[in-house]
Amino acid sequence: MSFELAKSCPHTRARAGILTTPHGAVSTPVFAPVGTQATVKSLTPDEFFALGIGIVLANTYHLYLRPGIEVIEKLGGLHRFMGWNGPIITDSGGYQVFSLAHLCRVSDDGVLFRSHIDGSEHFLTPELCVRFQEALDADIIMALDECPPYGASFDAVKEATERTHHWAQRCQESKQRRDQALYGIVQGGVFMELRRRSATGLTTLGFEGYAIGGLSLGEPKEVTNAVVDETVALLPQDKPRYLMGVGSPEDLFEGVSRGVDIFDSALPTRIARNGGLFTPEGRIIIRNARFRDWDGPIDDGCDCYTCRNFSAAYLHHLFKCEELLAYRLATIHNLRFIMRLMEEMRKNILNGSFPSFKESFLANYEPTDEETRVAQKRKWMKGRDTKFTT
Amino acid sequence: MSFELAKSCPHTRARAGILTTPHGAVSTPVFAPVGTQATVKSLTPDEFFALGIGIVLANTYHLYLRPGIEVIEKLGGLHRFMGWNGPIITDSGGYQVFSLAHLCRVSDDGVLFRSHIDGSEHFLTPELCVRFQEALDADIIMALDECPPYGASFDAVKEATERTHHWAQRCQESKQRRDQALYGIVQGGVFMELRRRSATGLTTLGFEGYAIGGLSLGEPKEVTNAVVDETVALLPQDKPRYLMGVGSPEDLFEGVSRGVDIFDSALPTRIARNGGLFTPEGRIIIRNARFRDWDGPIDDGCDCYTCRNFSAAYLHHLFKCEELLAYRLATIHNLRFIMRLMEEMRKNILNGSFPSFKESFLANYEPTDEETRVAQKRKWMKGRDTKFTT
Repeated sequence: MSFELAKSCPHTRARAGILTTPHGAVSTPVFAPVGTQATVKSLTPDEFFALGIGIVLANTYHLYLRPGIEVIEKLGGLHRFMGWNGPIITDSGGYQVFSLAHLCRVSDDGVLFRSHIDGSEHFLTPELCVRFQEALDADIIMALDECPPYGASFDAVKEATERTHHWAQRCQESKQRRDQALYGIVQGGVFMELRRRSATGLTTLGFEGYAIGGLSLGEPKEVTNAVVDETVALLPQDKPRYLMGVGSPEDLFEGVSRGVDIFDSALPTRIARNGGLFTPEGRIIIRNARFRDWDGPIDDGCDCYTCRNFSAAYLHHLFKCEELLAYRLATIHNLRFIMRLMEEMRKNILNGSFPSFKESFLANYEPTDEETRVAQKRKWMKGRDTKFTT
Repeated sequence: MSFELAKSCPHTRARAGILTTPHGAVSTPVFAPVGTQATVKSLTPDEFFALGIGIVLANTYHLYLRPGIEVIEKLGGLHRFMGWNGPIITDSGGYQVFSLAHLCRVSDDGVLFRSHIDGSEHFLTPELCVRFQEALDADIIMALDECPPYGASFDAVKEATERTHHWAQRCQESKQRRDQALYGIVQGGVFMELRRRSATGLTTLGFEGYAIGGLSLGEPKEVTNAVVDETVALLPQDKPRYLMGVGSPEDLFEGVSRGVDIFDSALPTRIARNGGLFTPEGRIIIRNARFRDWDGPIDDGCDCYTCRNFSAAYLHHLFKCEELLAYRLATIHNLRFIMRLMEEMRKNILNGSFPSFKESFLANYEPTDEETRVAQKRKWMKGRDTKFTT
């Protein structure tokens, strides 16, 4: 496991690197699609390759509940189970326990929760969290964190941040495998003082990578950006930085500009299944009547399977009929859009032209307006079901 | 357009042939997967090729309602619209109008119905039926037929059969394109006298192929087989015969044995989406707990993408989680199973070993018991929704 920086942008904090894992090397900055339940919804691993996906995220919480860690272990680990031999990150399950499960009790020892599926009771500790992720056999594993919701008080976030620190240390101590990289997760909500304490604390413990958690939870974008700025400045230069839950084109630019190397988010795949498709001009809604007889592809400049083979009219038809192929073709397009974007960002960092690339992309791209974005985010976080969201 | 017989089985009526269409040749006997709404649910045309699919069926009724015939015509026809350059059959819409739409009035002129989607009123005539199918640009098109339900009285079926005959003649007279083959559909329900009249009447008119409609509607299998026997005997040797709505392994054997060349059915794809998977021993239910940690593929001898790459345990997991990939991997397996079965039937007809092949397959294969089969069929016909059935 290693991380090597290839080039840094002289005008921003953007950087290009190579992350080496037991299942192959990944060029950074990189976006990891979300494969919650050991599947990136609707796609096969063959398609991951075709899309240029370098690394995939899977959810320990979901896999623990279904099919159960012991099933995946017995079947030879997550790579073999899902048929993907490339790099995998598993998250700690902390985020899901605190946002999706029915929370029962948090103590310094661990967290008692009820499954969102069948209400069964479970107790998760930092030691179990590491043991599960070792059994799942991911390349990168995450320390257990406590992730308070946006809007939590200073005192509540302070307590969660301190607990996250102690849990990270216990994860480190209980880790047995040497062929997996353990990343610590910086918490601290929107409170700079807590973020600083968390970042310096974890850096002192020393991890193989550092994630920034507890963002993209409905807070304004300026707050996200300020927290990332503040946090990244305190993290070591030579370790990968991973911003959790970020995946829109405009947000990826902000993160990369601030020195983030790894991102994950369900956004590109989730909006795809709802008919929201990325184009260089912004998101389109494919169900819109104007696409009913649109002969061209969704995006003329796109090299994805969907754009090379099908008209926007065909996609419109599939969505109107709620055909299964709709979700798949849309997912292919959105992921390829993001993959190409990350590839181009990297190329421009290497060429020294990242700032002008960013400027020209954002000049064409109309982001979803802030009000809609926040409303969608809150609606999603409230009404999640595991079939069409995660 | 041509049909050439390559070999006939000396012991049964089974025959192997080559059906040539403007979009390529098809080896018969052949099974046509159902692509109701211009998509074989969850699959891309690339996968049709990989599965060995020779010809696909699409539904005029559904495409007329959504996206509308004029949209597909404007976009260059069905092949281009759905990205499949191989042979296509479109059905007449008759079956759907009489089973899925809200029927208003049938007269000799045509049929008035309300859409099952939005209740809008439409009038379909034999002439419009041909015009729509000419615009859709399929290789094989079907004459408009009236398809009474199983259990209809002799008089009702008699009237429908006579009407079907006159409509077939009008379809023939209104047909303009010479690069599409028009097939007539034999009706007559379970009444041998009506079947004979229908078959000889259509044969006298002379079509490029003959379908047997109005079967597989819930009647006992012995009745289906007897009607097929009686009908096929009256159809010309040198034209293809198409048994509509048949798609289980055991029924395909019965049809092929009786001299049928073409089949279509939603069964293999529909049961796949419900977790019913073909194996040489019979159908398995993948949600069954015994597959929870089953390390091997669904079917050891299967060469499909699903069996080559994934354990039964992974499919079990995907189905339990209602993941989109479940429906796709299951569809791939079931269609490949049927494609291989048809390929093997053909090979054995050519080798003169069809009867022993049939015997050895059926000795291993436990069909779904008759009671369950009929119950499932009726339940499906009653509760159809267009998303997971048709």
